[in-house]
Amino acid sequence: MEIVKGSGVVAGELLAKVNSPADLKKLHEDQLEQFCKELRQFIIDIVSVKGGHFGASLGVVELTTALHYVFNTPYDQLVWDVGHQAYGHKIITGRRDVFHTNRIYKGISGFPKRSESEYDTFGVGHSSTSIGGALGMAVASKYKGLKDKHHIAVIGDGAMTAGMAFEALNHAGVENANLLVVLNDNCMSIDPNVGALKEYLTDITTSHTYNKAKDKIWELLGKISKFGPNAQEIASKMENAVKTSLLKQSNLFESFKFRYFGPVDGHDVVRLTKVLNDLKDIPGPKLLHVLTKKGKGYKFSEEGNETVWHAPGLFNKDTGEIIKVIPKEPQPPKYQDVFGHTIVELAEKNPKIMGITPAMPTGCSLNIMMKAMPDRAFDVGIAEQHAVTFSAGLATQGLVPFCNIYSSFMQRAYDQVLHDVALQNLKVVLCLDRGGLAGADGPTHHGAFDIAYFRCVPNMIVSAPMNEEELRNLMYTAQLDEIQGPFSIRYPRGNGVMAEWKTPFKKLEIGKGRKIRDGKDIAIVSLGTAGNLATIAIKALEAEGVSVAHYDMRFAKPIDETLLHEVFSRYKKVITLEDACIIGGIGSAVLEFMADHGYTAQVKRLGIPDKFIEHGEPAELYEECGFSPKQIAQTVREMLLEKQDEMAV
Amino acid sequence: MEIVKGSGVVAGELLAKVNSPADLKKLHEDQLEQFCKELRQFIIDIVSVKGGHFGASLGVVELTTALHYVFNTPYDQLVWDVGHQAYGHKIITGRRDVFHTNRIYKGISGFPKRSESEYDTFGVGHSSTSIGGALGMAVASKYKGLKDKHHIAVIGDGAMTAGMAFEALNHAGVENANLLVVLNDNCMSIDPNVGALKEYLTDITTSHTYNKAKDKIWELLGKISKFGPNAQEIASKMENAVKTSLLKQSNLFESFKFRYFGPVDGHDVVRLTKVLNDLKDIPGPKLLHVLTKKGKGYKFSEEGNETVWHAPGLFNKDTGEIIKVIPKEPQPPKYQDVFGHTIVELAEKNPKIMGITPAMPTGCSLNIMMKAMPDRAFDVGIAEQHAVTFSAGLATQGLVPFCNIYSSFMQRAYDQVLHDVALQNLKVVLCLDRGGLAGADGPTHHGAFDIAYFRCVPNMIVSAPMNEEELRNLMYTAQLDEIQGPFSIRYPRGNGVMAEWKTPFKKLEIGKGRKIRDGKDIAIVSLGTAGNLATIAIKALEAEGVSVAHYDMRFAKPIDETLLHEVFSRYKKVITLEDACIIGGIGSAVLEFMADHGYTAQVKRLGIPDKFIEHGEPAELYEECGFSPKQIAQTVREMLLEKQDEMAV
Repeated sequence: MEIVKGSGVVAGELLAKVNSPADLKKLHEDQLEQFCKELRQFIIDIVSVKGGHFGASLGVVELTTALHYVFNTPYDQLVWDVGHQAYGHKIITGRRDVFHTNRIYKGISGFPKRSESEYDTFGVGHSSTSIGGALGMAVASKYKGLKDKHHIAVIGDGAMTAGMAFEALNHAGVENANLLVVLNDNCMSIDPNVGALKEYLTDITTSHTYNKAKDKIWELLGKISKFGPNAQEIASKMENAVKTSLLKQSNLFESFKFRYFGPVDGHDVVRLTKVLNDLKDIPGPKLLHVLTKKGKGYKFSEEGNETVWHAPGLFNKDTGEIIKVIPKEPQPPKYQDVFGHTIVELAEKNPKIMGITPAMPTGCSLNIMMKAMPDRAFDVGIAEQHAVTFSAGLATQGLVPFCNIYSSFMQRAYDQVLHDVALQNLKVVLCLDRGGLAGADGPTHHGAFDIAYFRCVPNMIVSAPMNEEELRNLMYTAQLDEIQGPFSIRYPRGNGVMAEWKTPFKKLEIGKGRKIRDGKDIAIVSLGTAGNLATIAIKALEAEGVSVAHYDMRFAKPIDETLLHEVFSRYKKVITLEDACIIGGIGSAVLEFMADHGYTAQVKRLGIPDKFIEHGEPAELYEECGFSPKQIAQTVREMLLEKQDEMAV
Repeated sequence: MEIVKGSGVVAGELLAKVNSPADLKKLHEDQLEQFCKELRQFIIDIVSVKGGHFGASLGVVELTTALHYVFNTPYDQLVWDVGHQAYGHKIITGRRDVFHTNRIYKGISGFPKRSESEYDTFGVGHSSTSIGGALGMAVASKYKGLKDKHHIAVIGDGAMTAGMAFEALNHAGVENANLLVVLNDNCMSIDPNVGALKEYLTDITTSHTYNKAKDKIWELLGKISKFGPNAQEIASKMENAVKTSLLKQSNLFESFKFRYFGPVDGHDVVRLTKVLNDLKDIPGPKLLHVLTKKGKGYKFSEEGNETVWHAPGLFNKDTGEIIKVIPKEPQPPKYQDVFGHTIVELAEKNPKIMGITPAMPTGCSLNIMMKAMPDRAFDVGIAEQHAVTFSAGLATQGLVPFCNIYSSFMQRAYDQVLHDVALQNLKVVLCLDRGGLAGADGPTHHGAFDIAYFRCVPNMIVSAPMNEEELRNLMYTAQLDEIQGPFSIRYPRGNGVMAEWKTPFKKLEIGKGRKIRDGKDIAIVSLGTAGNLATIAIKALEAEGVSVAHYDMRFAKPIDETLLHEVFSRYKKVITLEDACIIGGIGSAVLEFMADHGYTAQVKRLGIPDKFIEHGEPAELYEECGFSPKQIAQTVREMLLEKQDEMAV
């Protein structure tokens, strides 16, 4: 036994010998159960002290082991959907000894990632891409004549509700490619899975309808045959008819021309290896329905709340106590909770308000409204497209939907925002949580692009509060009767800046920013919470005798032209600042304004540069992007050193 | 009988009396068939001389009539999916006498549109939004306690393949709202529908599996009962079991907790009214499967190619001859055909090339490759998201997918481009047909936003050819081994500018534009085919003695900095020009370059302004947007009149 370097954690005896699927394959079938135990313990040991996603990976320990035991990875292509559940996969495929760097800046990613390992065949983070991705691989292999190559997509029942999964099923069903979809059915997204499909799967699983009916018919057919040859003949015909219809057509997945197998127990590793081995010989598209439990094998997560144990933070692995630092002073709330409480407060007064989330009630705190007003708050499943179009439908009837979607997930609903909301100028309030750099989840989850992709949408009001009070006031303003069209409000992950955040509502004028402070030497024009980084920088500069004006635009669109006229009449040096991509963002909006009004000034745009930013703590990422408070201050100093006449003309 | 003003067309006796659903309801049931005949004839008469979509509306004449006859529109909410099929609906709901202005500038829209009529409950154009939109309406009515209000989504089997339709089904199945989905099954999108779902529906329809099995079981159950009381009891149990399983579970839509009815003949108007009336009394989510034939009732479309008759252009209604003007000189080809022929030419040499289209093989001319190389060209159904992620999967295996999606439909795949292609830096060539103002289809189909929404995507090469030769060379360059990441090429609807377009391939340097001509007074920097409008303007200005330089950027990203250094070193007045939204487009890219390099100049950005542009001929729309050749020339003149010192500072 040896402690994995840097982790303080000991891998079990079998796991210590396994650093690749080849090592795993050396184990005897009888050892697999023990191996799974050790793999599970290793995940518990590390995640409890290092943090990260938890329940999903525990739930697929056996499935992960069986897949790598049976299939010839990485030649065979294994695609994990979303990737929350891929910790076991990472540990088995060469990353055991760096697993404790998971989600840490410059450490391994919390999600499968092609650049990290040849075993990570398809980068994930957003859900429901696995079937389409794996089908592409399978079709490529078919084209190349690689008949022995397998392609496996592992997708959860939550991820299965997203439209693109069905689009892929529809295509896969008619491509005779070597595709195995493993449906990891644990009845959960991050929150409990919802919708008709979930009920359907539960029906199958609990046999209330499907299996009981099937068994009953078999049993009755047996009885009929005792009525003699004539009846036997009928029974036989009946059996054929039933087989044809019930067995072939009765299954949703068979409707998509997939061969359906299951459900099977996802925690019986030996049985899983046998089933997977059998499936190897079956050509074409097939689906294996595997039942698992999120958080399996860790007492406290099995018995506790699965949503809490999805990503519990640090915890005492022995007591199951989740470690919470209780501060002495009141702390600023999370922005998501400001949203969650404020929508309830507003909805109590305005009966038109409805709340919509695509499968993120806990993540965006709409769960507060779902509890308080269950008939007015909807979790529509992992279905961003539908969430927006459904909201548009509500809006046509005079209701005021607040549709809350993480910034990076809103990319999934871009057409619906353009085509169903903005083009019809419908009053839908789009609340974009996780706007800006989202931290440890990394590039799939950073909300980098929203300002750019929404700013070009006609009719759209694009806003970003700098603090909790502004968030509340923007939400308040958005729901007022006088507002007619779409209204977007983006705010970041994590905590705000106001311990006393529950301020009285105040109507904000659309397209009006505010001057935070005057200055003599240079002006900073910021959008959203990045303005708080400027505040820190400005304070430091003040101590040096540098006087910086600060303007909070509040709206990226319509832009506050009065404020900008003031800025460019008074300052020849201007810094724009946003926690969003600088291409097309507020900085570009400012440049457009300047061109339209013939202003010249030296403008430096700070924000997310034109590359994908990896995972890390926000402060580390601001630094990487060049807009940490220190870097903002340094930019000011450098600009002040440059003389106007040094500019090219 | 009276000629409808301005149309030259006579409405039949019954239709002449019907200008609203209220009028329609005055007809006796016996008259409905005749009414349908007249409605169909009216559509034939007008579309044959005015153009527009054809087959889809003919196919739903009876369904449209029955829906408005039975339901209390507009109180009851009728949502048409896509809207190609809504001509009959428009004619019945007050637009009979303006129907001949369909798709004409300032005339009525070719699609349902909320601002046009209270009967148009939800604007459409893109597919598969109807179920989600109607569900929003139904949930709003439920919340308001409007139990008598019906909500009907009419969706084609093609539109049903898009993911968002399934997302909506998944949600609708568990909302006990008053929603009727009418599945208009004609086995067609614009091209024949494809995929597993289509096969499944065909199975149901042709009874090969579902109905035959159902009938057979019923028949056999009848026979069993003659074996006496004991057998009868078994038969009865059996019936229950079969009912439970086969009827409840055997249907795909019942898996989504919808009650399924059908299939019914969509051309029997009286039967349809009876069925729809019955369905009024059934609460909750339900689906009526209606079988129709695209182009029904017009001999030449029924017997001919349904894809051709989707939107045939003008035709002789008596002979079925589609009117084609045969020019004396060779004409420039359609850009889509340049794409279609060029991809085959390239694929013949490069075995890695694959072609992908989401249900637009005829529209984007990938049908040429599908015919020439059926194993290398894929129509994946109406499924833009899947098309891109499937392409990403192909690319992981070293293939070079050319994924062709109309610019406005690419909005549906934005997240897939960001998350599955660009983030992984996979080599997928994204060909955006219908970039820029798309003409008569209007705001849902204009490709206005692509430059803005792609320019902020890291790793992405964003290009737009000015002519056919450039399109060919960009396609050639994109597939070369040295290109590693995503490469987008956008080009417009309609014809190019080069009669002799089949030029030899030439590698283009990435991020390099070209100087088309030198000039003394001012420079125009254009992107894409809008540059041809500048060419006309420049010629006119030359005659006046105004000397205009012209630069074709070719790439919006990476931008040609060398060329821009030249431009801003030499010119103090610059016009940027693009057939794309000016917010975030090439003009903004130029301003960003200027700010980054400290250039000052007077810059005027021409392009699509910040509003949704209605339908019309491209020339009319350029004029509306302010970048017709005349307006470009006028902008030059105005800028030259302004003195530098008049600019604000």
